Amino acid sequence: MNKVSKERLWRRMMELGQIGEQDSGGVTRFSFTEEERQAKNLVISYMKEAGLIVREDAAGNIIGRREGRDPLAPAVLTGSHIDTVPHGGKFDGALGVLAAIEALQRMNELNIETVHPIEVIVFTDEEGARFGFGMLGSRALAGTLRPEHLDYTDDQNISIAEAMKGSGLDPDNIAEAAKRPEQVKAYVELHIEQGTVLEGHNQPVGIVSGIAGPLWLKFTLTGQAGHAGATPMNVRRDPMQAAAEIMGHIYREAKKYPNAVATVGKVTALPGGINIIPGEVQFTLDLRDIDETVRDEMENSIRSCAGQVCKEKAIDLHISVLQRIAPTPCSPDIMDAVENACRKTGLGSITLASGAGHDGMQLGSLCPVGMIFVRSRKGISHSPEEWTSPEDCHAGAEVLYHTLLQLAADKV
Amino acid sequence: MNKVSKERLWRRMMELGQIGEQDSGGVTRFSFTEEERQAKNLVISYMKEAGLIVREDAAGNIIGRREGRDPLAPAVLTGSHIDTVPHGGKFDGALGVLAAIEALQRMNELNIETVHPIEVIVFTDEEGARFGFGMLGSRALAGTLRPEHLDYTDDQNISIAEAMKGSGLDPDNIAEAAKRPEQVKAYVELHIEQGTVLEGHNQPVGIVSGIAGPLWLKFTLTGQAGHAGATPMNVRRDPMQAAAEIMGHIYREAKKYPNAVATVGKVTALPGGINIIPGEVQFTLDLRDIDETVRDEMENSIRSCAGQVCKEKAIDLHISVLQRIAPTPCSPDIMDAVENACRKTGLGSITLASGAGHDGMQLGSLCPVGMIFVRSRKGISHSPEEWTSPEDCHAGAEVLYHTLLQLAADKV
Repeated sequence: MNKVSKERLWRRMMELGQIGEQDSGGVTRFSFTEEERQAKNLVISYMKEAGLIVREDAAGNIIGRREGRDPLAPAVLTGSHIDTVPHGGKFDGALGVLAAIEALQRMNELNIETVHPIEVIVFTDEEGARFGFGMLGSRALAGTLRPEHLDYTDDQNISIAEAMKGSGLDPDNIAEAAKRPEQVKAYVELHIEQGTVLEGHNQPVGIVSGIAGPLWLKFTLTGQAGHAGATPMNVRRDPMQAAAEIMGHIYREAKKYPNAVATVGKVTALPGGINIIPGEVQFTLDLRDIDETVRDEMENSIRSCAGQVCKEKAIDLHISVLQRIAPTPCSPDIMDAVENACRKTGLGSITLASGAGHDGMQLGSLCPVGMIFVRSRKGISHSPEEWTSPEDCHAGAEVLYHTLLQLAADKV
Repeated sequence: MNKVSKERLWRRMMELGQIGEQDSGGVTRFSFTEEERQAKNLVISYMKEAGLIVREDAAGNIIGRREGRDPLAPAVLTGSHIDTVPHGGKFDGALGVLAAIEALQRMNELNIETVHPIEVIVFTDEEGARFGFGMLGSRALAGTLRPEHLDYTDDQNISIAEAMKGSGLDPDNIAEAAKRPEQVKAYVELHIEQGTVLEGHNQPVGIVSGIAGPLWLKFTLTGQAGHAGATPMNVRRDPMQAAAEIMGHIYREAKKYPNAVATVGKVTALPGGINIIPGEVQFTLDLRDIDETVRDEMENSIRSCAGQVCKEKAIDLHISVLQRIAPTPCSPDIMDAVENACRKTGLGSITLASGAGHDGMQLGSLCPVGMIFVRSRKGISHSPEEWTSPEDCHAGAEVLYHTLLQLAADKV
C-alpha cells in the first residue's frame, strides 16, 4: 500500500497546532517571534525525519529538499506557511507544509525516484498579520521583494528589517533568497479552502483554477446634507441614493461571471443623523476574479455606472484605488496533474477558484503555479473554529503526493 | 395705509436675536434657562406695546390676547416658539412670534374690530434641544402632555419637572395649560420654510398644505460574515446586498408621491473590514408625508419589499419603530384664508408641505391648523447662517395679518 500516513500527518498537525496556542482561543504565531521559531524548528525536525536536506534561506524560508535523479533539473516546489493571524486556526498554512513533508516522506519510504528534485518550502510571513505586509518569503523567493518593503513596522514600531536581524537574518542579503526561473519547474500548494464550495459539493478535495487578485476601491460621494423633512426628493443631492444604486450595479455585475466576487465591507454616511440627509457617503469595494480581463471589465462597468449615477444626481464622485493585485491563473498542466491525482486517489474532481490570496500569487512570475484545496468545515477560517477532518487532511495529502510524483517524474 | 411695520418687525427680530448669542456663532436659548427667561420678558414687553393682555400659563407658554367683539367666542390662536437649537438662527420660531405681535399691534393701531379674540402664543420648548423631548408647550396646550413626559432629563440630569420648578412653574399644575376645543377656533403659525421650495419658485411666502409626520424605522439585517475572496456570490448571505436593494426600493417609493420624503441617514456594516463580507448591516429610515394614508402605503410597500428581499437572500430581518408621529393635514379653510391673504398682499400663492415638525402638529387634535411659510435663504436652518430678508419677513407678517383678520372676523 502506497498511501501517505493519515495518523502521522494528523499527529504532526495537532503537535504544531500547540505552538502559539492562546488561553483565549486559537493560535497566534507572528513572523520572527519565539513562537514562529519554535514552530520552524519543529517543522525542521519533521523534514529531517522525512529524510529531507534542510536549509534556511536569506528570507527565513525553510526549505526541505528531496533530490531527484537529475540534481541539475529544475525543482518542483511545494509548501505553504506556518505563521498565523491572531487567534487563527491550526490548518491555514500548516496543512500545506505538513502534507508536503508527509508526501515526500512516503516517497522515501517507498524508495521512489523522481527525475526532478522536490522542495518543501515554509514561506516566511504569508499572513502579514504582524507588519501589515504579507507573503514576504514568497516575494523574496520570486525576487520581487523590494528593499523598502522591509521598512513596514509592527505595533511596537519594529521594522521587518529589524525583526529579521533579531532572528539572525541579514536584511541586506535578502536578494539571495531569489530563485531563477530555470531553477524551478513548478509550484503546487495544498491549502484549506476557507470557503464552502467543496462542502456544498460534498467533496474533500478540489482543483484550483486560479488565485483571484483583489482590487480595492474606495468610493467617496459628496452631496448636500439637509433636513430630512424639509427637502423634497426632487431637489435632494443625497449621496446615499447614489451609493445604493451603485452597489446594486456592483452586485449584479459580479453575478454575471462565474468566479467573480464583489464585497462592500465598509460603509459610512455622514454626519449620520436619522433625520439628516447625508452630505457624504463612503464605501469600499473588494472586487476579485481569477481572470484580470474579467476584473477589468467589471471595474470599467462599475466606474461608468457610478459616474453616470452621480452625474444624474449632482453628486461629486471620487474613487481611489487602495490596492490592485493581479490575479494568478493556475497552470493547465498542473491542473491536469491534480485531476489525475484525484482520479488515482479515487476522488471526484471539482474545479474552483481561490478567492483568498496565497503565496502562489507571488510565484506566478517565476514558474507555473497550481493549488489543491481541501474542504473547510463551514468555510470558517482565521478563527479558532477553523477545522478540516483527519480524513480530509489525509485525502488532500494523498492528492498532493500523486501530483508531486507526476510533476517531478516528467521530463523537463 | 394698513401695512404692518417692516421696520419695527425687523428691529424686534434683531433685538430678540441678541439674547443668547454665542461668541462661537449663532443663538442658543434652551428652555427654562436665564436666556429663555430674558427672551420671554422681551417678548412680553413687545406684547404690551402691542396692547395685548399677557399671561403665562402652567406650561410657561406666554399668551398675549387681543379681545374680540364677542369675548366668549372661540379664540384664533397664532404664534410659534423662541427657544433654539444650540448655535441656531435668529428666525426659526422667533419670526412667527414677532410677526404675530406685529399683526395684532397693527390691528390695534387701526382700531380694527374682530368677532373672535386672537391670542399670540410663545410655546415653551418646541425644539427639544435641552431634554430631547420637544413641543412641550403645544402638547400641554393640546392636553396631550403626560406626567411622565416631565421625567425627561438634560445633560446635567435635571428633569423637565425640576427645570419647571426652577422657573417658578408647578409641574403638578401642568394640566391647567390645556385648552378645550370649544375655546379655540383655529391655529395658524408663520414659520421660515427651512427648505428651498420657495426659493426655487422665487416666492417670498407659501401656503402650507400639511405637516409631515416622521416615521423612524431601524432595519437590522443579519447574514453570515465571511472572507471576501473565498465565498462565491451564489452562496453568500450578504446583508449589504439586501440593504442596497431595500434602499433602492425606498427611494423609488418616496418619489412616487408629491409630498413624500425618505431619508437613510445612518448606515453601518459590521464587522466593517474591506475584505470581509458583513455579517450585519443596520440602517435607519426617516419616512414622511403629510397624508398618513400615503405614509402607511409606503411603509407597507417597503416592509413587504424588505421581507421578500431578505427571504430570497436568507437574511434575518428585524425592523423596529423608533418613532411614529401622525402627519397633520392643514385645514382647507385656513389654506383658503392664507391664499386670500396672499392675493390681498399682492403675492402669488404657492402650496407646499412642511417636512419639518412644528407646534401645529400637537394642536391637530384641538382645532383646525394652518401654516404660512416664509422663504429661507438656501434652505439653511438650525445654523448661524439661517437667514430671511427683511422684505420676506415683512411679506410673511402681512400675509399673517390678513389671514388672522379673516379667521377672526368670520362668524363661528
